[in-house]
Amino acid sequence: MTINRQIHIVELPKDKLGPQHFRLAEAPMPQPKDGELLLKTKLISLDAANRAWMQGATYRAAIEAGQVMAGGAIAEVIEAKAPGFKKGDLVFADTGWQEYSALAARTAQKMPKVEPLSYLLSVYGIAGLTAYHGLLNVGEPKPGETVVVSAAAGSVGAFVGQIARIVGCRVVGIAGGEKKCAWLKSELGFDAAIDYKAQAVGGALKLAAPKGIDVYFDNVGGDILEACLFRMNMHGRVSCCGAVSQYDGAAPAHGPRGIPGLLVTKRLKMQGFIVMDFNDQRDKALADLQNWVKSGQLKVPEDIIDGIENTPQALIGLLAGDNIGKRMVRVA
Amino acid sequence: MTINRQIHIVELPKDKLGPQHFRLAEAPMPQPKDGELLLKTKLISLDAANRAWMQGATYRAAIEAGQVMAGGAIAEVIEAKAPGFKKGDLVFADTGWQEYSALAARTAQKMPKVEPLSYLLSVYGIAGLTAYHGLLNVGEPKPGETVVVSAAAGSVGAFVGQIARIVGCRVVGIAGGEKKCAWLKSELGFDAAIDYKAQAVGGALKLAAPKGIDVYFDNVGGDILEACLFRMNMHGRVSCCGAVSQYDGAAPAHGPRGIPGLLVTKRLKMQGFIVMDFNDQRDKALADLQNWVKSGQLKVPEDIIDGIENTPQALIGLLAGDNIGKRMVRVA
Repeated sequence: MTINRQIHIVELPKDKLGPQHFRLAEAPMPQPKDGELLLKTKLISLDAANRAWMQGATYRAAIEAGQVMAGGAIAEVIEAKAPGFKKGDLVFADTGWQEYSALAARTAQKMPKVEPLSYLLSVYGIAGLTAYHGLLNVGEPKPGETVVVSAAAGSVGAFVGQIARIVGCRVVGIAGGEKKCAWLKSELGFDAAIDYKAQAVGGALKLAAPKGIDVYFDNVGGDILEACLFRMNMHGRVSCCGAVSQYDGAAPAHGPRGIPGLLVTKRLKMQGFIVMDFNDQRDKALADLQNWVKSGQLKVPEDIIDGIENTPQALIGLLAGDNIGKRMVRVA
Repeated sequence: MTINRQIHIVELPKDKLGPQHFRLAEAPMPQPKDGELLLKTKLISLDAANRAWMQGATYRAAIEAGQVMAGGAIAEVIEAKAPGFKKGDLVFADTGWQEYSALAARTAQKMPKVEPLSYLLSVYGIAGLTAYHGLLNVGEPKPGETVVVSAAAGSVGAFVGQIARIVGCRVVGIAGGEKKCAWLKSELGFDAAIDYKAQAVGGALKLAAPKGIDVYFDNVGGDILEACLFRMNMHGRVSCCGAVSQYDGAAPAHGPRGIPGLLVTKRLKMQGFIVMDFNDQRDKALADLQNWVKSGQLKVPEDIIDGIENTPQALIGLLAGDNIGKRMVRVA
């Protein structure tokens, strides 16, 4: 009998997420019902959103204790009991953190075969598309404008900064640590980088963005959002992608100072989005991303960890900022 | 010699604004220089923004102690030393709180003669235009949607709710006191009203806006903005017009909880604006407002106080929510 290794969440964190909130379990292979697919997980996507889901219902139902941890992955179809799919197909689906899953076929998205496979989770996956749509469609940068992105060395931020450069903007990244900041400039071509662990962000922005900020792509919320708001230019745009500073703790804290006062004074637009909002523009986005990757304009930083048993630590580390680029776990 | 009575601001308030921050003074008639107009103040506009200007630079320079209090007014041209103006013309200008002023003609906006004159400060002035553009161009309400407006019995809010009704929305007003709430429903046709002094706004919104909020027109910021954010529908819009809850005190407090988390989860847009941003659409707006007033669809609540010496108390009372409709002081 094939064993299905799984990571269960045993208790929802009240504060910081730790290894004690997870356990490795073994279950029998699931059996697909009519309309379902039996999937073998290949690459699990690790995202700050995994932690946000533990805080309550968001754009998906809240995660519950005692169950397999939720999460998206690239998986291979082992058995198809639904039309339109066949053995060997690749899909993206919310398989959860387990080796095998049986899911309704309508919840699985068929994926092309690309080399390397990991690009389906990074540049051609949620990370790349989120960066693309959130920057271009929500932030609406114009050539010559200044774009600032937080969590700049993370999966989304690294693409945001590079795409902003491609469309002709000055790009400032905010990241934690000297190593990430040096890497943003030398490897990804950012014009400037601010180490928020070593510098006061507000003061550093005066030097790094001397003409003010036109577009701020916000992955973190909290104090860094506040510092950026005070440096926004008139009619600036804040693309709200996430609030990772608020996820790994209790209920959300109060928002940044100056909201909504600064929004009025500076006539700012702050807009939240998630990548699915732009599904209708997916083909155009993928075509652009593919062209930029082929031409070498867009580098694809990835951080791949082996072994499903390491998934909890991979997420805990991601929330602490350990990763550079898109983090994922290779299962098979 | 004609005497020019003025209200000076003697000290900037560190906390709540009071009568001790003002004094009545007398000065000689100003003499207009080349390029200037000598103006006689007729109606002074009272706005929560007067108080916000005391907190620091906004879309205008901060107010300074020891000077005539700043403020817009309808005034009559007594002497014109600039082309394009003549004695007897009506203008809107930042005359300050005084009977006579000499101002650069380029800072004065010529006004048509309408009856009553006060409509130039209410429905055809900043209040009416702010409501029109902030609701229709920023909030973008669609027929059948639910619009919530705070400070609903105030100068802008009273127009916002009525215009939202005109364009086919369900309208909920938030105001302080039973009297204002009853008036919003009986006189202005609001579908529901919430007395924030007597009810918890979050709970009351569940009843008053059972299908959630699509557009929230925010005049107040703070806790009421927070309560509305939690009741917004997916892809809702927050039109940020002001934050009167934050003006009459020290520096701005932290923002509402859930920013930017809720903006992401619900894909909300929060956008600040001021009326001048829509100057290019002024004629269309005025034509619509005039038609609605003529047809009786749009009522024009006004609250006129006589005597320049009463201007400080008129502003202090406005910040406490004493007024119903647009408050102004008749000087001459």
